Amino acid sequence: MRRYPRVVVVGAGFGGMQAAQSLAGARVEVLLIDRNNYHTFVPLLYQVATAQLEPGQIIFPIRNLVRRSPYRFQFLMAEVEEVNLAQKWLKADDIVIPYDYLVLATGSQTKYLGVSGASEYAFPLRTLEEAVTLRSHILSCFEQAAHTFDAEVRQRLLTFVIVGGGATGIEMAGALTELVKAAIAKDYPTINPQEIRLILVQSGDRLLTELPPKLGHYAYKRLWQVGVEIYLDARVSQVTEGAVHLEDGATLLAETVIWTAGLEAAVPETSDDLSTKAKGKLAVRSTLQTVDYPEVYAIGDMAYVEQNGKPLAGVAPEALQQGVAAAKNIVRQRKGKAPQPFSYFNKGRLAIIGCYSGVGKIGKFELTGFLGWFMWLGVHLVYLPGFRNRLFVLLSWLHSYLLSDRSSRRIIAASTLRQSGRFNETRSRSRSALLQSSAASGYGSERE
Amino acid sequence: MRRYPRVVVVGAGFGGMQAAQSLAGARVEVLLIDRNNYHTFVPLLYQVATAQLEPGQIIFPIRNLVRRSPYRFQFLMAEVEEVNLAQKWLKADDIVIPYDYLVLATGSQTKYLGVSGASEYAFPLRTLEEAVTLRSHILSCFEQAAHTFDAEVRQRLLTFVIVGGGATGIEMAGALTELVKAAIAKDYPTINPQEIRLILVQSGDRLLTELPPKLGHYAYKRLWQVGVEIYLDARVSQVTEGAVHLEDGATLLAETVIWTAGLEAAVPETSDDLSTKAKGKLAVRSTLQTVDYPEVYAIGDMAYVEQNGKPLAGVAPEALQQGVAAAKNIVRQRKGKAPQPFSYFNKGRLAIIGCYSGVGKIGKFELTGFLGWFMWLGVHLVYLPGFRNRLFVLLSWLHSYLLSDRSSRRIIAASTLRQSGRFNETRSRSRSALLQSSAASGYGSERE
Repeated sequence: MRRYPRVVVVGAGFGGMQAAQSLAGARVEVLLIDRNNYHTFVPLLYQVATAQLEPGQIIFPIRNLVRRSPYRFQFLMAEVEEVNLAQKWLKADDIVIPYDYLVLATGSQTKYLGVSGASEYAFPLRTLEEAVTLRSHILSCFEQAAHTFDAEVRQRLLTFVIVGGGATGIEMAGALTELVKAAIAKDYPTINPQEIRLILVQSGDRLLTELPPKLGHYAYKRLWQVGVEIYLDARVSQVTEGAVHLEDGATLLAETVIWTAGLEAAVPETSDDLSTKAKGKLAVRSTLQTVDYPEVYAIGDMAYVEQNGKPLAGVAPEALQQGVAAAKNIVRQRKGKAPQPFSYFNKGRLAIIGCYSGVGKIGKFELTGFLGWFMWLGVHLVYLPGFRNRLFVLLSWLHSYLLSDRSSRRIIAASTLRQSGRFNETRSRSRSALLQSSAASGYGSERE
Repeated sequence: MRRYPRVVVVGAGFGGMQAAQSLAGARVEVLLIDRNNYHTFVPLLYQVATAQLEPGQIIFPIRNLVRRSPYRFQFLMAEVEEVNLAQKWLKADDIVIPYDYLVLATGSQTKYLGVSGASEYAFPLRTLEEAVTLRSHILSCFEQAAHTFDAEVRQRLLTFVIVGGGATGIEMAGALTELVKAAIAKDYPTINPQEIRLILVQSGDRLLTELPPKLGHYAYKRLWQVGVEIYLDARVSQVTEGAVHLEDGATLLAETVIWTAGLEAAVPETSDDLSTKAKGKLAVRSTLQTVDYPEVYAIGDMAYVEQNGKPLAGVAPEALQQGVAAAKNIVRQRKGKAPQPFSYFNKGRLAIIGCYSGVGKIGKFELTGFLGWFMWLGVHLVYLPGFRNRLFVLLSWLHSYLLSDRSSRRIIAASTLRQSGRFNETRSRSRSALLQSSAASGYGSERE
């Protein structure tokens, strides 16, 4: 029986999912591998972390792709352990899988830039589990502060430091101010919103350095207006339990430190070293093939791709377009034609800074304010996979923006979270210490 | 300053939430304590476990009650460690809290009836975390079976045993058959639905022993028609890894054993023993006050309440009505009046057996089929707290019943689940063993 060549796609992020989908019609057998059984719509993670959306609303079950082409498309939920480039096979969960073509699309991971304590005490925000863990932690801080009367402990619980002034950092800062305004003020009558400190620490001299200065300045002004303290030209030297230390010697006491500052390519273990560039990203030809192996493609956040002499920014549309390009080039190779160079068509960039206010650059046109905000919502709704997700996210947005509320306020049990690394024993011990310290001034004295 | 007397309500299930809400208007200060910051709508848990609803759709943030009466209502997210009945205080997370009145509403917990191995290897279904864990486990079994070629291992992965033929057991059995029909058949082209075995083990001689025989017989017939194997008069003697052993010597090899068979009252630690009755439930007077302490009430699943000489069944409407009654009696006591006896007004019982088919008893009227199913949906939608939940659950039901699909198919990472007790190291080792055994006959041979 004649078999089609097998294309293995590793990673079901924007690049990998798109490559797999684009290959669906071709005369190849596709095997998509991911450690999760779902695709995560990363640009909305911060809205999960701030209780605006449910985790289930921003994911897409990968097996929905199987439904569309059940005979040529397979999915394997597994971790890729090893790739043998010379012999063209990879190993995932102890299964050895040979390939004819390989598309690497494993994305990036948080990089703590050598800051000691950051990986233990700061919260990253790159996966769905991390977003859910962060949400639970933020809400737990308010729960604890509500019955903590020790002023210092209480202030530490109510201080939130965001490290990084890029798009994720400012979106997170904006969303946190709204969480406070929308839900915290109503839920915790014993917490004065003035007690809550939101601090954004940025190493550069302005926010949003990847966008034109005007937009960074606008973001600064908007965040400042809603009460976010912004430290520019400030670098974190160390994170310890309950504190962030800056290089200039300042210490910020905070129970919550959110790390949005760095990333590096997440490359699976390979038999032979692949050439890399900045941030550990794989060097690729203009066709997205790796330099050394013409049957191996690297796309998305793990590939170093230049356009007009500058590296691409690492955003979703780039990965999506690369997924399409890699798929087309594989089909060309299969037909004996030469792969074509990839060229990124930049439709623009957008970021929102809380309710009714956004920034963006579309072509040469720079947007700020309501229009930027509205376009952001529209674009994300259109790109979010799955009709059901779109409907539910739209309804959640209507609910949260019109009623100024946050619905997804579930705290996952600490016993479950502890496992995911952030809620370690130390933290949970410190919690009961906090509660103990409040006992004296707490419920005891208020009787008829 | 004059203070209102403090009523502490422990547990935010149906009884506790209702008691707290009913006390909102009264001249008392209410403190509600729960280990979670949300109320769980338990009757829909099995729909979370079978990927039909999202966890966030069946919970209600307890602090929504704070919003309604911010000055007299407080909430504490904590575990109650000790209750000192003589001195009228309790301790939660090391905080000592005195009370004037106490409402105990801590519900029930799974009881494994002395069956060895059940607590380690069977999946309970009484909390939201358990429902999410079970969902992830069920879907993981299909993920593994999809690339397992060892016939015996594959059959074990595709066999699901439900222990208990009460309402939860039959609802779970019905929902699992639909999960298979709606999603599994489409998602896993390599799994033949005929391979999947669903087994219901019931110790009594018919299903739904708490309802009239006609309804139990109907449920049997319906489940049998959709392919569920039903073992009546069968008792589980032991659960081991991957197997259920029956008292008659039979062994059912199954990776998934769902335990819906027993429960006992979950009573917090008290200074002095409270009188108990069957299943460890607290003995109460007809007024719902505990026998020994007139200022302490016990309601819901943890209280032993009789009506016409028979104990109540332990369903949500009983707890809700008891919550109202306890609140009223506290107000009466406060005014120096005698508390009044509680009387349960039975509006009926309903259970569904998969799509378009339900059973119920309303007054003397016994319902089966479409009408029972439709009424069940309506009643649950009306009682589910929160407008947003109602809308989202309704949309999810429309989606799942009209399109015959299941949307909430996210598998939570095993590293997170392992913590919650079910996904232990053994299981995860056995998984990679399974994958290894499939490697030989797996992807290796299918090449052009």
